[in-house]
Amino acid sequence: MPERLVIIGGDAAGMSAASNARRQRPDLEIVALERGSRTSYSACGIPYLVAGDVADADQLVARTPQEFRDNHRIDVRLHHEATGIDLEARKVEVRDHAHDRTLHVGFDQLLVATGAHPVRPALPGIDLPFVAGVQTVDDGEALLARARRGGCHNVVVVGGGYIGLEMAEAFVRWGANVTMLEAAPHVMGTLDADMAEPVAGALRGVGVDVRTSTRVQGFEPGRVLLEDGHVDADLVVLGLGAAPSSGLAESAGIELGAKGAIAVDRRQRTRADGVWAAGDCAESRHLVSGRQVHVALGTVANKQGRVAGINLGGGYASFPGVVGTAITKVCQTEVARTGLGEREADEAGFGWVAARIDTTVASGYFPDLGAVTLKLLAERGTGRLLGGQIVGTDGSAKRIDTVATALTAGMTVFDVVDLDLAYAPPFSSVWDLVQVAARKVAAEVVALRP
Amino acid sequence: MPERLVIIGGDAAGMSAASNARRQRPDLEIVALERGSRTSYSACGIPYLVAGDVADADQLVARTPQEFRDNHRIDVRLHHEATGIDLEARKVEVRDHAHDRTLHVGFDQLLVATGAHPVRPALPGIDLPFVAGVQTVDDGEALLARARRGGCHNVVVVGGGYIGLEMAEAFVRWGANVTMLEAAPHVMGTLDADMAEPVAGALRGVGVDVRTSTRVQGFEPGRVLLEDGHVDADLVVLGLGAAPSSGLAESAGIELGAKGAIAVDRRQRTRADGVWAAGDCAESRHLVSGRQVHVALGTVANKQGRVAGINLGGGYASFPGVVGTAITKVCQTEVARTGLGEREADEAGFGWVAARIDTTVASGYFPDLGAVTLKLLAERGTGRLLGGQIVGTDGSAKRIDTVATALTAGMTVFDVVDLDLAYAPPFSSVWDLVQVAARKVAAEVVALRP
Repeated sequence: MPERLVIIGGDAAGMSAASNARRQRPDLEIVALERGSRTSYSACGIPYLVAGDVADADQLVARTPQEFRDNHRIDVRLHHEATGIDLEARKVEVRDHAHDRTLHVGFDQLLVATGAHPVRPALPGIDLPFVAGVQTVDDGEALLARARRGGCHNVVVVGGGYIGLEMAEAFVRWGANVTMLEAAPHVMGTLDADMAEPVAGALRGVGVDVRTSTRVQGFEPGRVLLEDGHVDADLVVLGLGAAPSSGLAESAGIELGAKGAIAVDRRQRTRADGVWAAGDCAESRHLVSGRQVHVALGTVANKQGRVAGINLGGGYASFPGVVGTAITKVCQTEVARTGLGEREADEAGFGWVAARIDTTVASGYFPDLGAVTLKLLAERGTGRLLGGQIVGTDGSAKRIDTVATALTAGMTVFDVVDLDLAYAPPFSSVWDLVQVAARKVAAEVVALRP
Repeated sequence: MPERLVIIGGDAAGMSAASNARRQRPDLEIVALERGSRTSYSACGIPYLVAGDVADADQLVARTPQEFRDNHRIDVRLHHEATGIDLEARKVEVRDHAHDRTLHVGFDQLLVATGAHPVRPALPGIDLPFVAGVQTVDDGEALLARARRGGCHNVVVVGGGYIGLEMAEAFVRWGANVTMLEAAPHVMGTLDADMAEPVAGALRGVGVDVRTSTRVQGFEPGRVLLEDGHVDADLVVLGLGAAPSSGLAESAGIELGAKGAIAVDRRQRTRADGVWAAGDCAESRHLVSGRQVHVALGTVANKQGRVAGINLGGGYASFPGVVGTAITKVCQTEVARTGLGEREADEAGFGWVAARIDTTVASGYFPDLGAVTLKLLAERGTGRLLGGQIVGTDGSAKRIDTVATALTAGMTVFDVVDLDLAYAPPFSSVWDLVQVAARKVAAEVVALRP
């Protein structure tokens, strides 16, 4: 009997692992269990599907089950939900929803790639049908259909993070009155307060009623209840972040790590023999803080899946970790961050200095200037780069990659000043904006030296 | 008597050095000799001045002589051309063109920042008035005035490098018939042939008659002479690159280095005691090849000037070197490069593998996709990143900074695959295009291992 790899979860991490394992081991039997109706879809694309940017939901699917079957001999079973893992007996209990039956699938190696799920706090009325989470392509299609029917006059977005921003944009573009409710004192909790302010300004600029320090108390049909009053809503979209779907693994006795995500080593091995985990259900190492973190992003899921697959196939690969890079936009305003923010730097024990600059993307004398605000943090004393945040117009946010790459290399702000970055007047000022900020931080680092 | 620093050349390197030296040493007497009529102008902005993008030539000036005088107590003398350096007597012979007199200025320390000049081959007729070089803001203004008068129906650009491309765009936008003559088999000699091809395509796409392997024999009024025939021209613009203006230093016995540029160490010291050099007249170290090179770019001039100024003021700074990053555009097509191309890698002794990808800037399902071609080179065996080249549409070229930063850090293509780069569908595919190319090169590196 050939060795069998069972993969629980047929999205980015699971299917990336499957393809990579197949490439290494033509003889391996690979079974992927997916409880939904699609494989390998871009969850990050869902807000743009809802906004009407994507012509067809199927475009979000990178590869179909049939393609995996035909081209990679991977046995993808849709509507198959894993309901239990027996590590002793080496088998997974599976509910086949299509045929309403339970079966057991034996494994030699197991990859848990169960992803994450939107956080749904236990508030009164949260299960009312007008309160929507955003997880699957089906969720996105349902919201799009609803927007197209024209039934979304008053939309409330709960949470001012990435998904909240993107869903707010989507419904602004559908012409809805959008209210954003954020419990914290500022939106975008992954940014520092001073950088979140212009993001809130951008939201307000496109007509979103942003209410910070505002806690939702519950939901009644047609309205969202607050501490003092309510907001009318035809539709509520939850954007409260994602929690790792690690319950199945935990029940099987597999050790959890950061924020309840499955604990893994750099080869994506769990603490259980022959059991691997990758993607939104697994933890990552943060290369700046050195701590284990939970980052539910498609980039990380693809990388972890690839590494797991190569290792599962008998090769060697390792995932060094993340630096916490993320990017989004609200209409014309782009937002990006990487590394540690002020609070994270504090928590990780760094003494730090920060500097912020307000500048333009291109040379100052060039027309159609894009305004941009960039903030960098560096360690006090050493000047080691700790993080960066960008809020700006067209073409500014992707410049965070320079910061992410420098962070990964362990560069100081002094090193960043020396970088040979590309300059021509339509693209940059002669000192790239990252370097202008680095010079400002470097001056503070020097000034604070004993 | 206070110590006196004399600076020859009042552009980016010279004036950046002056300001930085002043910050360190309030007591220093600083005299800057500039033979032209402006300080600190952006030579890189001249093509955009000619194109009509820049409202006013004065906008290209970062700081005026009066500002240097008032804010930094720097004695800038315009129309003062240094004509000799006497290292023994510690003085510079200066021609004051405004008053038609010769004077001598003594120095304790000397910074040579004489810049570079456009290459003008000794061809018959090259001094005819319709043959223009592009060096100063005055040159740019003259060309703009000419374009505005409408006298440029047939424009011939000699040379298909950065200036050639930018001047071709400028005159295409003025409605001229533009012919580009390039002696080499392909335009953009700093790109590999396969990457130069789409640039030539872009030039042709906007109506430029691109003729490669075409050597100019000379000029006659109204025409450019070729080996077989001629091209009619109301105006000829030379874009044949820049040579370091190091003749004055050489005459004084100061040692030259790469390509006739002044030899300097990492603190910008020449081999002559108390004499420094910075900017387009000085050489740089290439961090990938380890060789001395001549790079005449505003970015390098500003960095070298800053380092020279800090050192001149008694501080410590060093300029580690360049990785050969450059960027430009032709109308909607952006072009960027960094590190070593194929020929340079050969010359530096590297065995290399390369891979090219054709992809899009944003996620494949996103609208308004920008097409982009990216090529990476890596060392055979180690997989060390050696260089990258990008040709693509809106927003693609500045992504070269990720490659430039990774190069500076000495990363391998395997490291690049692991980078935590920013992803959201409007900005990128889930594997950033740099990583897609890195994966392809990495596979070749592995395949070629013994």
